[in-house]
Amino acid sequence: MSEQQKNDFTEWYLKTIQQAELMAYSPVRGSIIFRPDGFELWEHIQEEFNKFLKTQDIRNAYFPMLIPKSFFMKEADHIEGFAPELPWVTEVGDEKLDEPLALRPTSETMIGSAFSDWINSYRDLPYEINQWANVFRWEKKTLPFLRTSEFLWQEGHTAHANESDARERTMGILDEYARLAEEFLAIPVYKGQKTPSERFAGAVDTYSIEAMMQDGKAVQAGTSHYLGTKFAEAFDITYLTKENKHTHVHTTSWGMSTRLLGSLIMTHGDEKGLVFPPTVAPTQIVLMPVGPWKKNPAIMEKLDELFAKFKKAGYRVRLDDTDNSPGYKFNEWELKGACLRIECGPRDLENGHVMVKVRDLDEKNTVTFAELEDYVAEQLQIMPKRLLEKARARNKANEHYDINTLAELKAHIEKSNAEGTVPGFVLVGWDGSEETEAKIKEETGFTTRNIPFEVPMEKEFDLVSGKPAKYTLWIARAY
Amino acid sequence: MSEQQKNDFTEWYLKTIQQAELMAYSPVRGSIIFRPDGFELWEHIQEEFNKFLKTQDIRNAYFPMLIPKSFFMKEADHIEGFAPELPWVTEVGDEKLDEPLALRPTSETMIGSAFSDWINSYRDLPYEINQWANVFRWEKKTLPFLRTSEFLWQEGHTAHANESDARERTMGILDEYARLAEEFLAIPVYKGQKTPSERFAGAVDTYSIEAMMQDGKAVQAGTSHYLGTKFAEAFDITYLTKENKHTHVHTTSWGMSTRLLGSLIMTHGDEKGLVFPPTVAPTQIVLMPVGPWKKNPAIMEKLDELFAKFKKAGYRVRLDDTDNSPGYKFNEWELKGACLRIECGPRDLENGHVMVKVRDLDEKNTVTFAELEDYVAEQLQIMPKRLLEKARARNKANEHYDINTLAELKAHIEKSNAEGTVPGFVLVGWDGSEETEAKIKEETGFTTRNIPFEVPMEKEFDLVSGKPAKYTLWIARAY
Repeated sequence: MSEQQKNDFTEWYLKTIQQAELMAYSPVRGSIIFRPDGFELWEHIQEEFNKFLKTQDIRNAYFPMLIPKSFFMKEADHIEGFAPELPWVTEVGDEKLDEPLALRPTSETMIGSAFSDWINSYRDLPYEINQWANVFRWEKKTLPFLRTSEFLWQEGHTAHANESDARERTMGILDEYARLAEEFLAIPVYKGQKTPSERFAGAVDTYSIEAMMQDGKAVQAGTSHYLGTKFAEAFDITYLTKENKHTHVHTTSWGMSTRLLGSLIMTHGDEKGLVFPPTVAPTQIVLMPVGPWKKNPAIMEKLDELFAKFKKAGYRVRLDDTDNSPGYKFNEWELKGACLRIECGPRDLENGHVMVKVRDLDEKNTVTFAELEDYVAEQLQIMPKRLLEKARARNKANEHYDINTLAELKAHIEKSNAEGTVPGFVLVGWDGSEETEAKIKEETGFTTRNIPFEVPMEKEFDLVSGKPAKYTLWIARAY
Repeated sequence: MSEQQKNDFTEWYLKTIQQAELMAYSPVRGSIIFRPDGFELWEHIQEEFNKFLKTQDIRNAYFPMLIPKSFFMKEADHIEGFAPELPWVTEVGDEKLDEPLALRPTSETMIGSAFSDWINSYRDLPYEINQWANVFRWEKKTLPFLRTSEFLWQEGHTAHANESDARERTMGILDEYARLAEEFLAIPVYKGQKTPSERFAGAVDTYSIEAMMQDGKAVQAGTSHYLGTKFAEAFDITYLTKENKHTHVHTTSWGMSTRLLGSLIMTHGDEKGLVFPPTVAPTQIVLMPVGPWKKNPAIMEKLDELFAKFKKAGYRVRLDDTDNSPGYKFNEWELKGACLRIECGPRDLENGHVMVKVRDLDEKNTVTFAELEDYVAEQLQIMPKRLLEKARARNKANEHYDINTLAELKAHIEKSNAEGTVPGFVLVGWDGSEETEAKIKEETGFTTRNIPFEVPMEKEFDLVSGKPAKYTLWIARAY
């Protein structure tokens, strides 16, 4: 982290995403405008996940956004969990509606109702659908991308003949979320199971991928739920087995959202601004003339030629031929997270080369025109892995395994504050009680992230009660 | 049109789209569920239009769905036009909101407010943005795809330095809408200008493409608006000219929506069900074994091989190896609008060929394995043009030029009803008065579609008043 980020990470974040024109505030509380560079990040994530869905024969559909109140009432845990955050449409034009309609916070109820019409026999199973949609959760504290009243997401909903098929889908999706986060977005994640208090409202089990931001705080970056037969019972989703028996299906649901954009920015950004892997970067290559280029038309000719070549090869490339000074341009494109900057001035042209700066490396390299295409391809190929490794190393340094009591946790936090380090993720023992989770939260602001599938080290005792630990889990402050 | 379509076109439409699983009704009045095949049609339209946007450097963004009431009040015509159809969020959780929030029917106000922040200098112009979004208009009479309370669309919003640039964009988009309708969807359209009474609420000029359905009724399939400086004045969108003068921008907006899906179905469908051009068809090729294929495993081996080959070549292909009878399968895939059906039975395999049925042609053809790939490519290539020509010929037959008085129009309609033909599009003279439009609508249900850019024949007198005609325009019944 840079000094600026250390001093006030949130301030750095808010300043950067606005200056870089990823977003703008909207007149509606907690809602944001996704400006083109911000929205494009999401479009690339959509493309990538749609590719995966195709391999799984899971098709996209679109369900109505407004959900009748009566639908919500059918699954008790579900309405209890979402009620406080639901915006309600109560009027149309001048007329009051007979039944209020909620703006969907998620679509289990709407899709459950449809599944009950569409699923009849074991031959219809698995029944698997995905939807890209806007959803609404009126949260008290909001932060652009990470917690907004309206956000964009995908929500997958599947129905299966039995628990094992449903659980397999639940875990398969979590694996894909982790792959997408790590390979595509270069965000290392922690896979695991949520504790009961952090479960999705209405789920039997919730699994998550958690990402660690540069300030050590967590972002829940994707969740996959095994819903058992709860929604099947609430919405009467049954099928006829081979033995001609009416049986409830087992359902799953899973979602990842524009929160990922926040994670992306907070994982890779630096004091100069945004850093994106080329997989999602709106600008992969920016070309610019330097030196007295206006007197030397051959420079722009060369850059136009390179621009056309890169464009044709499918790169997201821009040519900055504005009158701004080189320094201004450097800053602007670093702020916006362009992966590669290619400069060409009179002397470069004479010598048959360009200068190339890779966004996340310090040095500038001289690259001949002959080598340029290969160099660009190679650099863009390497960059996601390098960013992932860098983030992984930082995560490792911010993981803490030697904290065994609440007092030690408090001391750790105080020490971090005093030293200007980040408290990070802390691995602790847990006796399985809600009291422990509540106490930790109350006294430190840390919350349970998840129970990792691969526990790096078994903890013997509960952090708070000192009783034998039933689970070992990650706790952290979270966005 | 088939007998079934002639008898009750709407009944045929509603039955077909449900049986073919394009859509399902939702529990919310006038909203529908886009099932995978229905949604996929929209996805292909999105891909096609996104390609165009890229060539124009118009980027996608996403703006909040909820619009404060005060925003609507700023442009008088706009609120007047939309007020009766607006759903309002008035509560969140248990709390009443200070200001009601409308579910967007369109986003001129939200985007106008943002433009006023983002546009400062002539260097920022043109400022051009597109958004894919769900929008809400609580219409009294609804019909799946064609008129629903919630629908999906794209809305483009652009700001320009002057009227001529803005008008150029307005018309360029209309041209692209027409190209997309005709070349991509095989729907012939009538380009022209809307009359003042049919203008978008807040526009200076509205232009449309109108499509004629098989029952002779019109669908407004896309509109492009020149908004002048109306929204710029309401939202204070100004820029500094080269001469350092604060000046209002000229804005445009333009949209096409999931109504296009309705047009697609009503233009090409027949008594067997859906007919789609391969450009958008969810299934371009369906392979199926026929005859005693279960005893002859070589058949499925061959079909698996063909399936893999077509899939690899990028076709949307399915293999129907269910136990259903060939007749059942034929019906099902014709209903769903698969473009090509390829059958292979024992004798076919022996003779080294398959039978191929093209959805919109009557005969089945024998095609050798060696020729199959070329044959498929060629057939899919030809199909959109053939569908377009067929629709064009039908349109021509349903255009009427010789109706010069209201009495003649009424007689024409009566004759059509008596003969079971469709009244179609009628070209009439218009003196420019709202009275004429109102009278035509009241007495015949016909509405003005648009004033065509290329008038096929100038009309001398107004249909109702008999006064000299200032314009020649198309009238028709419309969805």
